[in-house]
Amino acid sequence: RKRYNITLLPGDGIGPEVISVAKNVLQKAGFLQGLEFHFQEMPFGGAALDLVGVPLPEETSTAAKQSDAILLGAIGGYKWDKNEKHLRPEMGLLNIRRDLNVFANLRPATVLPQLVDASTLKKEVAQGVDMMIVRELTGGIYFGEPRGITINENGEEVGFNTEIYAAHEIDRIARVAFETARKRRGKLCSVDKANVLDASILWRKRVTALASEYPDVELSHMYVDNAAMQLVRDPKQFDTIVTNNIFGDILSDEASMITGSIGMLPSASLGESGPGLFEPIHGSAPDIAGQDKANPLATILSAAMLLKYGLGEEKAAKMIEDAVVDALNKGFRTGDIYSPGNKLVGCKEMGEEVLKSV
Amino acid sequence: RKRYNITLLPGDGIGPEVISVAKNVLQKAGFLQGLEFHFQEMPFGGAALDLVGVPLPEETSTAAKQSDAILLGAIGGYKWDKNEKHLRPEMGLLNIRRDLNVFANLRPATVLPQLVDASTLKKEVAQGVDMMIVRELTGGIYFGEPRGITINENGEEVGFNTEIYAAHEIDRIARVAFETARKRRGKLCSVDKANVLDASILWRKRVTALASEYPDVELSHMYVDNAAMQLVRDPKQFDTIVTNNIFGDILSDEASMITGSIGMLPSASLGESGPGLFEPIHGSAPDIAGQDKANPLATILSAAMLLKYGLGEEKAAKMIEDAVVDALNKGFRTGDIYSPGNKLVGCKEMGEEVLKSV
Ligand SMILES: CC(C)[C@H](C(=O)O)[C@@H](O)C(=O)O
Ligand SMILES: CC(C)[C@H](C(=O)O)[C@@H](O)C(=O)O
Repeated sequence: RKRYNITLLPGDGIGPEVISVAKNVLQKAGFLQGLEFHFQEMPFGGAALDLVGVPLPEETSTAAKQSDAILLGAIGGYKWDKNEKHLRPEMGLLNIRRDLNVFANLRPATVLPQLVDASTLKKEVAQGVDMMIVRELTGGIYFGEPRGITINENGEEVGFNTEIYAAHEIDRIARVAFETARKRRGKLCSVDKANVLDASILWRKRVTALASEYPDVELSHMYVDNAAMQLVRDPKQFDTIVTNNIFGDILSDEASMITGSIGMLPSASLGESGPGLFEPIHGSAPDIAGQDKANPLATILSAAMLLKYGLGEEKAAKMIEDAVVDALNKGFRTGDIYSPGNKLVGCKEMGEEVLKSV
Repeated sequence: RKRYNITLLPGDGIGPEVISVAKNVLQKAGFLQGLEFHFQEMPFGGAALDLVGVPLPEETSTAAKQSDAILLGAIGGYKWDKNEKHLRPEMGLLNIRRDLNVFANLRPATVLPQLVDASTLKKEVAQGVDMMIVRELTGGIYFGEPRGITINENGEEVGFNTEIYAAHEIDRIARVAFETARKRRGKLCSVDKANVLDASILWRKRVTALASEYPDVELSHMYVDNAAMQLVRDPKQFDTIVTNNIFGDILSDEASMITGSIGMLPSASLGESGPGLFEPIHGSAPDIAGQDKANPLATILSAAMLLKYGLGEEKAAKMIEDAVVDALNKGFRTGDIYSPGNKLVGCKEMGEEVLKSV
């Protein structure tokens, strides 16, 4: 049996519920494929703030770095919303991304045929949507220096941040995107604002220069405002999208809502080496926390991404993906994706149904 | 008769066609309300680049500043896409916004009952959408210094921009937004990324502080990624949105596509004093330029905004708005908003139909 060490970061809100369900699914699929998992649960986010006063304790960061992959639930809640910036759960997320150097965030947005009605888009527009957004995750305006709030010469407050990308940061995320597109339908759309931003001019130049190394991938460029429109107008036109940290934050959330099933969407954050970080796209949903109402499928599918992208265990990953489809085909639905004629279940029961199908 | 001087900036692509139609409508509505317009057409954008080598000639800027209001068509085209940044049509647009100091960009996104089918969103989601996006237009990352592309200590290229807002810049756009919300349904949503960006933390602080002066307006805050989702999930929840330059660029384009009739949407850019700049949301559409296929309604409605917000001539503005609805009620449609059962017309004929109804 191959052994893997997995760090679990349940976090806040519905995080613990969905992680506990996904862990069981991961364990079973692994077991059937000859894998053995050792799980270590560590405090993170608001839970860590309450416990030890910081959102990312040293021990959590160290455990994560020493493991083979990290599965994260969700972070944040009203309770910590008024905290100072460095004492907010979000800071834990930003810091662990940086500590792990996971610069490539893969966010699929797919509309499953079983769930096409969940989209607010017309059926003919939504059905068949299947794209992958590759978001740069450890650079740009999220981390750029200088940043802060100061007093200017008129004695008034000024807030500022720096959007900044070095050539190698652009190149490495572009390579991940070209490779991703190559394994999909061979189309890559790079999104920037090169008609206004210098950082985007360099971005476009570097991405364009790399294209000759991937002759099998068809590269196009789009301004971010147009991309935000095109996602609504005709989301099927996209295969793989690559973009910077802040544009990726906005566009991937827009794309996920277009699928209508944000409770279904996983993500993977990968570095050049070292463990990857896997988490659902959705937030901690404090309003339904602890009520067994959460949809665990995004976290279960994040576990599948962990197997595929984090450990290279494609077979076990496929088992999980198939099990999810199976549970949906049997009509099991949590509240967020429920439609009449189906069976409404809670988080735990959905988890058990997926587990049965693995 | 009151006299007004209007600068016309037809620009590129379909710009000249839609401006020529809108000018006639503006003239007639004004005449019937006792107004007299003097129009001065000036070179701008790619047209100015071809003529005199810069996108915003000195004479154009001066004429604009000395007039009572400016009506702009659209700028840009493939021809100038490879130009260096300062020799691109877009630079003319950014510079005239700054020269006129029009910091408040009002972008309505409404779904007319006649056109609800044009949206890619389901009818029940799209119908009744009626929001106003108030975008900061002369600050933030669009103009922030330092900016550029340099070589770092490793000898590699680095591109960077500065997102920066001073307190007074936030306050003045927030005031416009509160006033706007007050005249609408009294709800203002401020969009930022205060969980990550320092500039957004100051933004939220200043907007929040102003709220006490507008007790009749209900203020809420939303992160930009969530806003991009909520626009797709339930656009009707929004009344007035206020946000920075780059987020406003992205969200207003997304919102306009949600209405399904981007060819219908006008905008107004206003300063504290001096002339306002009025233009359709759509671009120059070079692929259909000169073919009499463009939808002139966005520019005609921009002329209505010019009357209302630029000159305070609400009656004449209302005449134009009513005339547009009338032409739609009679079934006239340009290609972009055509659906079976209606009468397909070109740009000119649509203009004539609106003119008849004024
Ligand atoms: C919580 C927040 C800091 C985070 C981000 O902006 O990256 C989240 O929105 C995401 O997309 O993972
Ligand atoms: C053309 C471009 C510079 C401009 C902008 O980004 O402001 C446009 O997208 C707009 O929204 O008016």
